Amino acid sequence: MATILGIDPGSRKTGFGVVRVEQGKPHYVSSGVIRLPVSEPLGPRLGVLFASLNEIIDLHAPDELAIEQVFLARSADAALKLGQARGAAMVACVQRGLSVHEYAARQIKQAVVGTGAANKEQVQHMVKTLLGLPAAPKEDAADALATALCHIHTSQTLKRLPAASLSRGRLR
Amino acid sequence: MATILGIDPGSRKTGFGVVRVEQGKPHYVSSGVIRLPVSEPLGPRLGVLFASLNEIIDLHAPDELAIEQVFLARSADAALKLGQARGAAMVACVQRGLSVHEYAARQIKQAVVGTGAANKEQVQHMVKTLLGLPAAPKEDAADALATALCHIHTSQTLKRLPAASLSRGRLR
Repeated sequence: MATILGIDPGSRKTGFGVVRVEQGKPHYVSSGVIRLPVSEPLGPRLGVLFASLNEIIDLHAPDELAIEQVFLARSADAALKLGQARGAAMVACVQRGLSVHEYAARQIKQAVVGTGAANKEQVQHMVKTLLGLPAAPKEDAADALATALCHIHTSQTLKRLPAASLSRGRLR
Repeated sequence: MATILGIDPGSRKTGFGVVRVEQGKPHYVSSGVIRLPVSEPLGPRLGVLFASLNEIIDLHAPDELAIEQVFLARSADAALKLGQARGAAMVACVQRGLSVHEYAARQIKQAVVGTGAANKEQVQHMVKTLLGLPAAPKEDAADALATALCHIHTSQTLKRLPAASLSRGRLR
């Protein structure tokens, strides 16, 4: 049994989703959006993200962090802002002992919807279906839950493969 | 009396400098470079930065953080990497209660050398002179010490000004 925290960091809001795996099956635990106080200076803003993630870790004691890899940022300015939130969020998890697993957006969509070109609505719909939720979670929370589900799927697939077929034996 | 931590974050190494102000005069406390284990994945790498800054804070109990503002990053990719280190470093200080003060590179050079167009060697030389050091600190450490000195200089200048002349009354 393991508990996975998925996050979708952004400079204004960060989606999070907690999924527990029991007997190979994913169970929904919690999800939501951490809104950063954008009127505050950068320091306190990142402090809110750090403290909120610490609360989530206190509450649900996740073992592993799944986070989307960033390949293409819109601009250098957007990349810096995203990077700051991403660094603060990641380090909040690392200092609490979570291992970090990064997945490309295509991998996440592929694992959850079955195609790397899925749109936002398809991701929300499949997250709802896979976790048996009464309604589709909001976009940021759905992306975070999808990232956690992708990690669970990938870990289980790797476990089923013989060790020799793993190219470098390490999940990135 | 206050103790200022200056940092110059980067994705491979982060310079730091600690300066204590006593009776309006800056005194050198410590400086150096935190090297990130670049062969490790991003999570542990940022974890080293976070843990190293926590050690520095344990050791010297700084009250305030001074950090260079980033205006122009070379590329979106460089900006993301710099942002991640910057966010992890900043949040390490914020969660320990330090207030954050950002300064533009030009402001820092102006405060330390007297011209916003100063080069690296001039900054290193003036940091050595202002702090009465036996030798010039290395580039990253010198930049961090210069950022701390800029904060001290700016705070003292603001204190000497009548309140009414401060446009918005807040240091950013």
